[in-house]
Formats: sequence, C-alpha cells, structure tokens
Amino acid sequence: MRAEFVNPFLSSLVNVLTTMAQLEITPKKPQLKTSEVAKGDVSGLIGMVGPKTKGSFSVTFEEELALEIMNRMLGERPTSIDADVTDMVGEITNMVTGGAKRLLAEKGFDFDMATPIVVSGREHTITHKSEGQIIIMPFDSEFGRAYIEICFD
Amino acid sequence: MRAEFVNPFLSSLVNVLTTMAQLEITPKKPQLKTSEVAKGDVSGLIGMVGPKTKGSFSVTFEEELALEIMNRMLGERPTSIDADVTDMVGEITNMVTGGAKRLLAEKGFDFDMATPIVVSGREHTITHKSEGQIIIMPFDSEFGRAYIEICFD
Repeated sequence: MRAEFVNPFLSSLVNVLTTMAQLEITPKKPQLKTSEVAKGDVSGLIGMVGPKTKGSFSVTFEEELALEIMNRMLGERPTSIDADVTDMVGEITNMVTGGAKRLLAEKGFDFDMATPIVVSGREHTITHKSEGQIIIMPFDSEFGRAYIEICFD
Repeated sequence: MRAEFVNPFLSSLVNVLTTMAQLEITPKKPQLKTSEVAKGDVSGLIGMVGPKTKGSFSVTFEEELALEIMNRMLGERPTSIDADVTDMVGEITNMVTGGAKRLLAEKGFDFDMATPIVVSGREHTITHKSEGQIIIMPFDSEFGRAYIEICFD
C-alpha cells in the first residue's frame, strides 16, 4: 500500500482532533504491521468497500487520551469509558474516514463507508484480516498514545 | 430491522460451526440491543455496504468456546487466543457474512462485504454505531457463549 493511501487518514485524524478538541498529536513513523501491535482501551473501526477494492480502518486510543479529548470537547471529564466516549470515538471514526474518502476521491480512488463499530476493553488488540498489507501509524500526545491502522485488499 | 434480516446470519453461524467444528450451539431469543451487552474475549467484525443501505455485523466468543472450536477444527487446543485463533475468527466472520449475503441476495437485498477485523482482549464490549436498530442474539453451548450483533442503517 502506498503512502498516498495513508496520508489522507493521517492528516484527517490530526485535523479532526485539532478542530474538535484543540488537541495536538504527533505522528510517528508509519510502518507495515509485522511486530508492532496497537494496544488500546477504546477503538473505532469501519469497513470500506469500493468498486475495485475493499478494506478496513481503525483508530485506537489509550484511555487517558480518550478521556482528555472528551474533556476538551465538552468541558467535562468522564471517569471511565462510558457511552458518551464510545459515541465520540464512533463520530471521530466517521469523520476521519469521511475526510480521507474525500481526499482519496480527488485522486480517483473511490470507496463507500460501512457504519462504524466501537470496541471498549482494557488493552485490547486489533487484527485487520486482509490479503493486502496493513499499515500501522502511532501518534504521541502528552495524554497518551493513539494508533491508526489501514488496510486495503 | 425485521427477522428476515437476522435469520440468515443466525442460520449461517449455526451452519458454519456444525460444518467446520462439529459443534452445536443453541440460539436464544434475539432482542433489540438496549440493556443486553455482549461481553467476550475475541470478536470478528465486518462492514457491509449496499446500494440502499450500510451496516455492520459482529460475532463474539468467550475464550473457552473459541479454543474449543480450534480444538475441534485442528485437533489441537491452543492455550490462549493467539494468531491462529484470530485467523479462525476472521475466517468464521467471512463465512457467516458470506452465507447471509447469499441468502439475503435471494430476497433482493444486496450488499458488499468489507474485510473482517478481529478484536481480542478480555471481556471487551462492542457498540455498533448505526441510526438503525441493533439486534443482538446470544447462543449457548457447553463451552461458553457466543453473540452475534447486526445492524443496518
């Protein structure tokens, strides 16, 4: 998978968090998922289906980072990952994928999005089952880590 | 969402486990997801996109049940949820959704499938973020519980 597929998701996540939560995250080096595993406490996942391809996207947050995003969006910090947090993560998943979809459509790469699914559970891991390569990209912030993973068949 | 959308997934899961693992599971009453929450240790998720609708499907297993399915399929029981188990859960997710897709296509309801994603983590929960209703269906077996959840916008 080429960088031109990854960058729209990267810039879209940075964009969404800056706009919605005035929160800066720092992208680290993207890599093929071989040894690196994203562990997190709440994740948003979404399926993508295009005329020539299919794939999946996920964004995973450590709990502290997810709670801080809520705090900055709503001015109130939940004590744990509750229904409001999973709603927010579902919304971020939709917005990031929608943003990337627009950027990729400009390059002639079209897909439709399924509905997002949110997973919560301490230190869960995610495995995209695809025949293509899986790209994982970690992000650092002062409140914890986030990861995005993308694959297309 | 009507029963005619749910039954193809139900019968497809029963079918796949009987055929692949000679394992019987007993469907309990399907219900709208309001209070009931599926907790499990390994889940397969997949997005679905059709010309008129989009949605998502998940199947969640308790660890003991997932390990027993592996045992019956391969004649060897892993000690924990490893890469072989997540591969198997991804495969089951594909097969169940593919089976349901064929049954629903006969009724004129078409969709394409994204690639499956597998989540592992003790007692994680899943929330489908859809504007439509979410149907959850528990299954009992002598080795533990399984759940499927389906939603279409």
